[in-house]
Amino acid sequence: MEKVSFKSIISNYKAVFVDSYGVLKNHQGLIDGVETAIKHVRDEGKILRVLTNDASRSQDEQVEMFMNIGLNTLKSSEIITSGMLARHFLELKIKTGKIAYLGTPSSARYFLQFGIEPVPVAEIDLEDIDDILAFVFLDDEGFDWNEGINKTVNFLRRKNLPVIVANSDKYYPISNNDVAVAIGGISRLIESVLNQKFIRFGKPDSQMFMYAYDDINKYGNFSKSDILMVGDTLHTDILGGNKFGLKTLLVLSGNTRPENFEMKINSTGIIPDYITDSILT
Amino acid sequence: MEKVSFKSIISNYKAVFVDSYGVLKNHQGLIDGVETAIKHVRDEGKILRVLTNDASRSQDEQVEMFMNIGLNTLKSSEIITSGMLARHFLELKIKTGKIAYLGTPSSARYFLQFGIEPVPVAEIDLEDIDDILAFVFLDDEGFDWNEGINKTVNFLRRKNLPVIVANSDKYYPISNNDVAVAIGGISRLIESVLNQKFIRFGKPDSQMFMYAYDDINKYGNFSKSDILMVGDTLHTDILGGNKFGLKTLLVLSGNTRPENFEMKINSTGIIPDYITDSILT
Amino acid sequence: MEKVSFKSIISNYKAVFVDSYGVLKNHQGLIDGVETAIKHVRDEGKILRVLTNDASRSQDEQVEMFMNIGLNTLKSSEIITSGMLARHFLELKIKTGKIAYLGTPSSARYFLQFGIEPVPVAEIDLEDIDDILAFVFLDDEGFDWNEGINKTVNFLRRKNLPVIVANSDKYYPISNNDVAVAIGGISRLIESVLNQKFIRFGKPDSQMFMYAYDDINKYGNFSKSDILMVGDTLHTDILGGNKFGLKTLLVLSGNTRPENFEMKINSTGIIPDYITDSILT
Amino acid sequence: MEKVSFKSIISNYKAVFVDSYGVLKNHQGLIDGVETAIKHVRDEGKILRVLTNDASRSQDEQVEMFMNIGLNTLKSSEIITSGMLARHFLELKIKTGKIAYLGTPSSARYFLQFGIEPVPVAEIDLEDIDDILAFVFLDDEGFDWNEGINKTVNFLRRKNLPVIVANSDKYYPISNNDVAVAIGGISRLIESVLNQKFIRFGKPDSQMFMYAYDDINKYGNFSKSDILMVGDTLHTDILGGNKFGLKTLLVLSGNTRPENFEMKINSTGIIPDYITDSILT
Repeated sequence: MEKVSFKSIISNYKAVFVDSYGVLKNHQGLIDGVETAIKHVRDEGKILRVLTNDASRSQDEQVEMFMNIGLNTLKSSEIITSGMLARHFLELKIKTGKIAYLGTPSSARYFLQFGIEPVPVAEIDLEDIDDILAFVFLDDEGFDWNEGINKTVNFLRRKNLPVIVANSDKYYPISNNDVAVAIGGISRLIESVLNQKFIRFGKPDSQMFMYAYDDINKYGNFSKSDILMVGDTLHTDILGGNKFGLKTLLVLSGNTRPENFEMKINSTGIIPDYITDSILT
Repeated sequence: MEKVSFKSIISNYKAVFVDSYGVLKNHQGLIDGVETAIKHVRDEGKILRVLTNDASRSQDEQVEMFMNIGLNTLKSSEIITSGMLARHFLELKIKTGKIAYLGTPSSARYFLQFGIEPVPVAEIDLEDIDDILAFVFLDDEGFDWNEGINKTVNFLRRKNLPVIVANSDKYYPISNNDVAVAIGGISRLIESVLNQKFIRFGKPDSQMFMYAYDDINKYGNFSKSDILMVGDTLHTDILGGNKFGLKTLLVLSGNTRPENFEMKINSTGIIPDYITDSILT
Repeated sequence: MEKVSFKSIISNYKAVFVDSYGVLKNHQGLIDGVETAIKHVRDEGKILRVLTNDASRSQDEQVEMFMNIGLNTLKSSEIITSGMLARHFLELKIKTGKIAYLGTPSSARYFLQFGIEPVPVAEIDLEDIDDILAFVFLDDEGFDWNEGINKTVNFLRRKNLPVIVANSDKYYPISNNDVAVAIGGISRLIESVLNQKFIRFGKPDSQMFMYAYDDINKYGNFSKSDILMVGDTLHTDILGGNKFGLKTLLVLSGNTRPENFEMKINSTGIIPDYITDSILT
Repeated sequence: MEKVSFKSIISNYKAVFVDSYGVLKNHQGLIDGVETAIKHVRDEGKILRVLTNDASRSQDEQVEMFMNIGLNTLKSSEIITSGMLARHFLELKIKTGKIAYLGTPSSARYFLQFGIEPVPVAEIDLEDIDDILAFVFLDDEGFDWNEGINKTVNFLRRKNLPVIVANSDKYYPISNNDVAVAIGGISRLIESVLNQKFIRFGKPDSQMFMYAYDDINKYGNFSKSDILMVGDTLHTDILGGNKFGLKTLLVLSGNTRPENFEMKINSTGIIPDYITDSILT
């Protein structure tokens, strides 16, 4: 497939959805030139939304994180996280009571700020679980894995309740070479032990795209053909965008690399509409 | 879990989404009393939508099929099929050219009525496939399985293109005891041979719920809490409804039976909000 | 990894186990030069066994097939098929009664020649299944797939009995470009519909290697370090040989190709001890 | 299925293979009456072997553990562990160099006592991994899970080498209600993140049965029909025994319970030849 220039392509669209990690930033910080690229999107009058499977930060915390690495123009309302969708799910399902979680207290505070009492797994009393009404996999930090994973398994063996995975990614990059197992990976271990399937949120599921689509239609009149989805990962960004019916642009600045993108596209059958090295050109 | 009465429950909602097979009809025809139940829904002023993973019939053909078995009040616009979503996907992605398919010519005519030339697998010339731009799994009928499955495998080994599964169900009931393997099951065989994942449409994916939700909001102002999803299958109707954020009612007149529903709920962890024997009470 | 010469390598071993398809023959017949290579193995005094996942032919039929394509020196006792192991399993488990099967009558005659009445799926009377005691997936030929697959699903929904897959391969090559779905692939479709796991025979399972190992030890004193396993497929020949504790030689004349073997080894983590283009050098 | 008495059944066999956990012992210690049952097996002149997927203890340590809970008659040579098979595999494959592992130093000492230098994951220097030649999942204890799992993932992303799972069980019981995730479960998490399949040892694979079978044939002349496999778990003991061609006896004193064994047999299709409440009768 031929590569295109991001700037030339976006002129055909009225809105741009971008993934965060691998498109805007990487483990070292903001990807060089992204500030200019985002400025270009705005100068051209395009609507922008960032769609991220990072469920550990609120919208405000995401904005602050981008500021800290040098991108000052993102607004809270432009950021859509899988955690927001998981939280909406719970808000509709469960009005009062306790929700147990694996993650940091800060991710739980953000996640469960609606009259619900969050209970970290470490504090569950396995003999007194009647008033816990749901379980959420929030973040890979904030608990001892050995204790937390085993206790979660035994809690879920005792109590049948809705189990939500707020970030379905298996891992995330932490350096040029290395990755860290994400809470979505840990949730799969527990699914495998229990022989159950939990409720997952995040790309490639259509829900996040639909949320963003409904959201921008409050500010204008957009059809799907007006929107370009930009991402670095075939199985989440591109599959999700394709399935929702958007045109998709694969960038090679993240998970999918210039040296193997053709092999990956061929072996997965997930085909972007366009390919570019990065959003800088 | 305690059982409830359908009639008492729907009074709390402004709209009702119902699955077709196992709720309204079964292999013998209309389930006894369904006509009265649907009349009750209308008399109470509730909005109705039928959400079905049956991709082999158009909306009009669905209406006709329901008429033939004795339910005359359904309108074409009240029926939402996974095939409609798959078709929207293709309409946005592919404007001209040929699309190959497994299924009946009539399912293809309905599916691909937009300036695209449908090519049944049997008529693909494997040496001349440049102008085929997508592949659709439509229906389990209309082709010889031995020839059709093998030819599809070899076509997809030669050409990398979007592959769509219009109905993700593995099988469907054809009598009290027996089932038939659906095109979603056949697609899984081919995925397994090719070691690929195709693009699926249908419940439990959020897209179909979102389509129905957007649709009814053209006629009024509905929030998710105004809608009850009614279905007989945990993995499609109830999981999908739960995930989209609707209240869910499991009926025991189809796939999930009175004698084993508790075991199935416990072993899957997919928990409906309500349970009823059928929509007749 | 560096490539080696087959002839130089086998001098270090007392016995050679070889896969059939992709090493000795391909869709066009005997691979050029194989006759000389086999002669070399014999001239060097090495014991030879052919280990094949082809369950549709008896040992005698295998010998005949090799004769027909020009290899006259193989003896019946040198050939070990996954079907033989599946048959041993049944002989030990079931002494009388009927066994239903998917496959050709000739594969069934060979397979079930021990006082058992074979019943092709097409002839099962679903209302009279009490005396059928096992089910075998034998061959992808000999039945109409549409009827045979659906009837098998419904038979297995009605009766809980041992289900054996005599060839676990998903597909086999039929030309340079094309493959055919094997009975192992069809069995997976039915497993997926029924949500069950059947009993499989064939490489990479240790049983076939252990059978060959016990067999040659009737004729001499062989330890595992005396044996070289030669095959073209990482997931069956090489993984199975590695797991059983043999040294393994990957040949690039079949499933694994010179242009992508390194990628495949890296992505699977299945590492042969040696690699060669073919057994001809 | 009708239940039988263990004592009446074993009179038909010359050798008895028994699983350890759930048959001989449970989380509280020796199961009541097991000492008498084992004495009966010996008094009747039957050969005994214990086949266990516990790879964390040597044969001597197993004997000591059984002594500590009150069973004094087991000999080291009667115990066969999946760890022994994994170790044989490595001994044949790798003669010198370093092998990295997840587990306790004591499990590594036992496992790797043959001129190999064991390296716990915590001590791997990711910049200096050239002389590490294999990786073993040994035990769920002896490392911090957060650090150990992440470091293992990144080590295996950098180096392509044989990866062995010495115990394929996902979890093991630690009390009447509770389980602990086993190293086999942790290995699956890492497989899922890396999208690889490791080399597993242990039941239901035929290798362990073949090892025991070859072993007892040093002391007499046993055919498969002379041996009864006794176990509490359908997917390991019974499937493995069935597949290897032994008669199988399911005991209901462990994983499979009197209240749900019929449902489990029906839903898995794994059918024992006999069923008994325990080996005490």
